[in-house]
Amino acid sequence: VTEPVYDVAHLGRVELLTPDLDASLGFFVSVLGMDEVERVEDSVYLRAWGDYERASLQLSAADHAGVGTIAWRTTSDAALERRVAAVESSGLGSGWTEGAVGHGRTFRFSDPDGHSMSIYYESEYHVPVGDEVPALKNQPQRMTTRGAAVRRLDHINVWCRDINLNSSYMVHTLGFRISEQVLDDDGRQLGSWLHVTPKSYDLAYGRVDPAGVGGRLHHVAYAVDAREYVMRAADVFLDAGVTIEAGPAKHAVQQTCFLYAFEPGGNRIEVITAGRLLLAPDWRPITWSLEERRKGQAWSTLMPESWFTYATPPVETMEEGGDT
Amino acid sequence: VTEPVYDVAHLGRVELLTPDLDASLGFFVSVLGMDEVERVEDSVYLRAWGDYERASLQLSAADHAGVGTIAWRTTSDAALERRVAAVESSGLGSGWTEGAVGHGRTFRFSDPDGHSMSIYYESEYHVPVGDEVPALKNQPQRMTTRGAAVRRLDHINVWCRDINLNSSYMVHTLGFRISEQVLDDDGRQLGSWLHVTPKSYDLAYGRVDPAGVGGRLHHVAYAVDAREYVMRAADVFLDAGVTIEAGPAKHAVQQTCFLYAFEPGGNRIEVITAGRLLLAPDWRPITWSLEERRKGQAWSTLMPESWFTYATPPVETMEEGGDT
Amino acid sequence: VTEPVYDVAHLGRVELLTPDLDASLGFFVSVLGMDEVERVEDSVYLRAWGDYERASLQLSAADHAGVGTIAWRTTSDAALERRVAAVESSGLGSGWTEGAVGHGRTFRFSDPDGHSMSIYYESEYHVPVGDEVPALKNQPQRMTTRGAAVRRLDHINVWCRDINLNSSYMVHTLGFRISEQVLDDDGRQLGSWLHVTPKSYDLAYGRVDPAGVGGRLHHVAYAVDAREYVMRAADVFLDAGVTIEAGPAKHAVQQTCFLYAFEPGGNRIEVITAGRLLLAPDWRPITWSLEERRKGQAWSTLMPESWFTYATPPVETMEEGGDT
Amino acid sequence: VTEPVYDVAHLGRVELLTPDLDASLGFFVSVLGMDEVERVEDSVYLRAWGDYERASLQLSAADHAGVGTIAWRTTSDAALERRVAAVESSGLGSGWTEGAVGHGRTFRFSDPDGHSMSIYYESEYHVPVGDEVPALKNQPQRMTTRGAAVRRLDHINVWCRDINLNSSYMVHTLGFRISEQVLDDDGRQLGSWLHVTPKSYDLAYGRVDPAGVGGRLHHVAYAVDAREYVMRAADVFLDAGVTIEAGPAKHAVQQTCFLYAFEPGGNRIEVITAGRLLLAPDWRPITWSLEERRKGQAWSTLMPESWFTYATPPVETMEEGGDT
Repeated sequence: VTEPVYDVAHLGRVELLTPDLDASLGFFVSVLGMDEVERVEDSVYLRAWGDYERASLQLSAADHAGVGTIAWRTTSDAALERRVAAVESSGLGSGWTEGAVGHGRTFRFSDPDGHSMSIYYESEYHVPVGDEVPALKNQPQRMTTRGAAVRRLDHINVWCRDINLNSSYMVHTLGFRISEQVLDDDGRQLGSWLHVTPKSYDLAYGRVDPAGVGGRLHHVAYAVDAREYVMRAADVFLDAGVTIEAGPAKHAVQQTCFLYAFEPGGNRIEVITAGRLLLAPDWRPITWSLEERRKGQAWSTLMPESWFTYATPPVETMEEGGDT
Repeated sequence: VTEPVYDVAHLGRVELLTPDLDASLGFFVSVLGMDEVERVEDSVYLRAWGDYERASLQLSAADHAGVGTIAWRTTSDAALERRVAAVESSGLGSGWTEGAVGHGRTFRFSDPDGHSMSIYYESEYHVPVGDEVPALKNQPQRMTTRGAAVRRLDHINVWCRDINLNSSYMVHTLGFRISEQVLDDDGRQLGSWLHVTPKSYDLAYGRVDPAGVGGRLHHVAYAVDAREYVMRAADVFLDAGVTIEAGPAKHAVQQTCFLYAFEPGGNRIEVITAGRLLLAPDWRPITWSLEERRKGQAWSTLMPESWFTYATPPVETMEEGGDT
Repeated sequence: VTEPVYDVAHLGRVELLTPDLDASLGFFVSVLGMDEVERVEDSVYLRAWGDYERASLQLSAADHAGVGTIAWRTTSDAALERRVAAVESSGLGSGWTEGAVGHGRTFRFSDPDGHSMSIYYESEYHVPVGDEVPALKNQPQRMTTRGAAVRRLDHINVWCRDINLNSSYMVHTLGFRISEQVLDDDGRQLGSWLHVTPKSYDLAYGRVDPAGVGGRLHHVAYAVDAREYVMRAADVFLDAGVTIEAGPAKHAVQQTCFLYAFEPGGNRIEVITAGRLLLAPDWRPITWSLEERRKGQAWSTLMPESWFTYATPPVETMEEGGDT
Repeated sequence: VTEPVYDVAHLGRVELLTPDLDASLGFFVSVLGMDEVERVEDSVYLRAWGDYERASLQLSAADHAGVGTIAWRTTSDAALERRVAAVESSGLGSGWTEGAVGHGRTFRFSDPDGHSMSIYYESEYHVPVGDEVPALKNQPQRMTTRGAAVRRLDHINVWCRDINLNSSYMVHTLGFRISEQVLDDDGRQLGSWLHVTPKSYDLAYGRVDPAGVGGRLHHVAYAVDAREYVMRAADVFLDAGVTIEAGPAKHAVQQTCFLYAFEPGGNRIEVITAGRLLLAPDWRPITWSLEERRKGQAWSTLMPESWFTYATPPVETMEEGGDT
C-alpha cells in the first residue's frame, strides 16, 4: 500500500483555442460573467469572481476550437520538483518555460494522448481594486451579478484514445486518484474521473474518442454555488441566444448538476454545481458497467447525440489538416 | 518555507455528552434526520446519509452536556504514525486504544486546553442494506428526507483559554493550516479557524473562553447542500419546537450560511452550507481586527448574547463540580 | 368588452382512477408526501400539507387509470348559483349531489369532451390536530418532510378532441380566461391554458387527443415552493424507483419548472413550481405558432415520445372496452 | 354574507419621494436591478423586468423621503366606475386626473390616514425592444441579471394612526380582504394585512404610528422568485454598501421571506418571496394576539429597534415642518 500523494493542488488554468476570439470573449464576459484580466499577443486572460489566482482561463486565437495548455498548480515548490522529476522520467516532459500571466516558472509536458499540460507552483493572487474590492476581505473580489456569474474554474473533461493509459499516467506521474470509472467487460476504461482535491473530480477522460483523433476537448467546467444557479444560468443562456446542448440535470456519475452549452468558438462549456465532497483518503473507485451506464443520467435525462460525438477540434476541422 | 503536511484527512467523529440521551437521540434522528448505527454501553452511534464512514457522531450519556473525544482520520497508516510521533513528543499523548465502532487502532491525546482528541486511519465504510440502498452507487446510502436531512459532519468549534497556544499546537503537531483569524492589537488570537480539507475550516477555536474554564464546546456543525436547505432546516426546527438561537444568516468570517440551535442535552448544533472552497495550498490567513469584527455578521445579523457567552458544559454545571 | 368573471375561485379536488389503489396510495403518501384524510367505500381522500381544504385528491379504485371528477370551488354561494345556471343552459349539467368528503352541495357537469367536472362552494377547512399542529397559525398543518413534500394542488392538464370547443366552453360557461395557446395556421387551437387565479393556469387542454378518444388525462400537478424542490423531488423519485418521464426542466409555455413521473396506477403526475404570477385582468392570450413550439421546451430539453402520446386511460385499455 | 368584490386587480405603482433623486435612482437601477422607463419633470419612472405594465415605481424629487401616490389597477372599466362611486360616497375622493405615464384616466383619493392613493384601469403594457426582447414571448422583457434583479412590485406597508378605521375603509370602499391581523385585548387592530390578489397581502397597515404623524410609509416591497434570491440580494447589498436593516429571515405573519434595507433617499425597501398563495375566497383572517406576536419573527430573528420606530418621512423631518 502506497501513501496518497498530495503534490498537485488543483486545476489552475485552461487555455481554450478559438477561431473567433472576439465572440468567445464576449461569451465569457457577458454570458458567463467573467472578467478580462490581461491581453498578451493573441491571448486574453480571464477570471471568475471567486478564483483566487489572477486568471483561470486563457482564450487564444487559433484556426480552430480546441484546448491548449491545461495548467495544474502544485502544493509547494518541492512538490513541483518531485512532479517534474516524475514527468521527465516518463519521457513526456518538454521543459521549463518562464510562466504565463500570473504564473512563476512552469514545466510543460503532455499526457500520452497529446493533451498539452503544465505544472507550476508560484502564482500571483488576484488583488481587487476600485469597484472590485469586496465588502468581505475573505473574498477575492466582489461577486459579479453579470450573466451566469460563475464562481470558479472547476474541472476539464477531455477525450483520448486509450483511457487506461492516460488515466494511469496521471495517477502515477502526478498523483491523481480515480474516483469513478466506467469499465467494459474486459476491464478497459471507457471513462475515468480523477481528482486531486475533495471535489471528487478535477480531470476526466470522459470517453474513448470515437474519431480516434487524440488531444481533443469535451468541455471545460465552471462552478456556481447551488443547483438554482445552474438553472439561472440556463435562463441566462436562453435570453442570450446561447445554444443549450443539455441540462440542467444531474449526472449519474459524480452526481453533479450540469448544464452544457457551446461558446461561439465551438468549445463546449459546462456550468456545474456539486453537493458532494469526497473526503476519504482511501476511496475505492466506483466502477460502473456498461449496462449500468445505459440507464443514462440520474433523472433519465435524454442527452442529444452531439454530447457523445462532438469534441473540439471537430473532426471536420481535423480532416482539413488542423491539429492541436 | 516548509511544505504543507497532508497527514490529517478530515474530521471523522465527534462525541457529544448529554444528560438526556433519549431526548438528544430523538433530536438527531427526528429533527436532524440522522440514522442510529449502533449502541455500545452508554453511547449511541449515528450517521448522516452522506457520511461515508459508519458513524460521525457518538452520543454519550453523561452528567452534563459537553464534548467528549474529537476524532480525526489520517490520510494513511504512515501518516498516522507520523502524527502519533509528533503528538508524543508534545507530551500531550495518552496512548493507543482499540478504536471505537468502525475505527481501527486509535491514538488518544488532547490539545493544550484539554479537549480530548484522537487520530486513526483504519475505518469501516458504511454499507447500505435494504431500503437504504441508493439508486446511484456513488452515494453511501439513500438520501434521507426526514427532518433537516443533514448530509455530513462538517466541523467543530471549541473555546479555549489561549487560542494562540492551541491553534499553534494543531498547526505544528497535526498539520492544520489557519485560514482565518481574529487578532487583537497585540497579536493575540481571539479566534482561529483551521483546516485540513479545502472546506476552509474543519476546526475552530472560536473564542477565548470568557469563563476561563477549558475544554468547552461551542458547537458541532453538520452540512447541507444549499442555503435553501439551511432555511428549510429552520422551518423544521420551528415546527419541531427546537429553539433557534440565530440564523439562517451568513458569517462574515468564512462566509458560511449558518443556523444555530440547541439539542435537548444542551449542546449547540449548527446546520451549515458553504459555496466557497479554499483550494490554495499557500493561503495567507485572513486576519480580522477587532474593529472589523464589530461590524458583526455579513448581513448585519444581530446575534443573541448567548452566542457569545454560552458553551458546554455550561459554567453553572462546572461550578457544581462537573468537569469534562 | 365584457368584464372578467370571478365566480370560480380555484381547482379544489381531482379524482384519480387507479387499477391498483394500494400502490397508488403508497406513492402519494410515501413519495409525494401527502396525508390520507379519509376513506369512503373505494376511495381514499388525501391532502398536501399546504392545502387549506380537507382533501385535494380522491383516489378511486377502478379498472383502469384515468381522471374521475374535477371539482372547482366557486367564490361564493351566489357565484355557484350563477355558474350552475350557465352550465344548465349549456345542456351539459347533470344535477346536484350531496357533496363528497368536506364539500357542501355540488353541481355536476361535464365539458364537451366528456371530462366529468363539478362546482361547489361550501368547503371544510382542514383542522390540524396533535403532531400536525403547526408552529405558525397561518399554516394549515405542519410542513411535511416526507418524500417530495408537495405543498398544494396546482392544476390539471387534459386532452380532448376539439380544444376550441372545450376551451371556449370553460371561458363562457365558467369564466376561465385563456393565458396562452398554441394555434395552427387555420386558427385551430392545439393547446389552451386557462386560469381563474393569478397562477397563470389552473386547467390546460394540452393537446388534441391523437387517439381521438375523449375524456382523457395528461397529468395532475402538485406545487412546491422553489425550483430546488423540483430537483429534490427528482432525487426522491430516483431513490424510490419511480420512473421519471421528463424534467426537471422549464416549459416554454408558461415558464413553469416541471418534473413528470408516473404513479403506480399509470397516471402521469407533475411536480411544479412557478416564479410568475399573472396579475393582469385584461391579459391578451400569448399565442404560439407551431413553428415556435417546434423549438421545444425553454432550455431545449428533449421530451420523450410518451409525453406526446400517452394519456390515461391508455388507448389499449380503451380498446379493451374501458370507459372514462 | 356578502360576496367578495373583485374590482381591484393589484397594486400598480408606488410613488416614492426622495431628497436625493440621483442617489435613489442609482440604487433602484444598479442595486435592485430595475430599468428607467421615462422622466417627466421631477419624476423618474422605473420598472422591474417582470412587471407587465410600463412602470411600477415613480421616483419623485422632494424635500424629504416618504410615499407619494399609491396606485391600484382595477379589473375593468366598470369596476373602476364602481370603486369611484364608493370612494366618492366616502367623501375622501379628490377627482379625476389625466393619468401619469402609461396609465389612463385616474381617480385620486386618500385613505382616512391621509395616504394618497389612486385607481385606474387603462394601462399600457410594456413593449420590449432591442436587447430587451426576451427569448420567450410570455415574458415582459429579458430577465435582468443586474444587482438583486427584482422581478415585480409586490406590496406596500404603511403606518397609520387608527388601523381599524383605515383597514375597514379599504375593505368596504375598495373590496380588499383582511388575511391576517394583530389585535390587542380590546379588539383594536395593531396590524392589518389586506389583499386583492392570492398573494395573501398587497397592502399592510403594519403598525399604529408611534409618532402619531399620519400618512407615513414603512416600506415598499419587490419580489424575487425564491428564498435563495433574497439571500443573493443580501449579498448584493453587502458589496454595494447598502445598509441592511434586517433579514434575510422569515416573517411569522404571512411567512414571507424578507430582507429590509434603506435606499439612499431614506425609504425602507423590502426584497421578498413567498411560497404561499391564499386561494380561499372565504378566508377567515388569522388573528394574532400581542402575546403571540411577542415571539417575534418565525425563526426568532432579532429585529433592530429601527424597524419598529422608523418610517418615512422621519419624525425629525416632520418636526422641521415637512409635510407628507
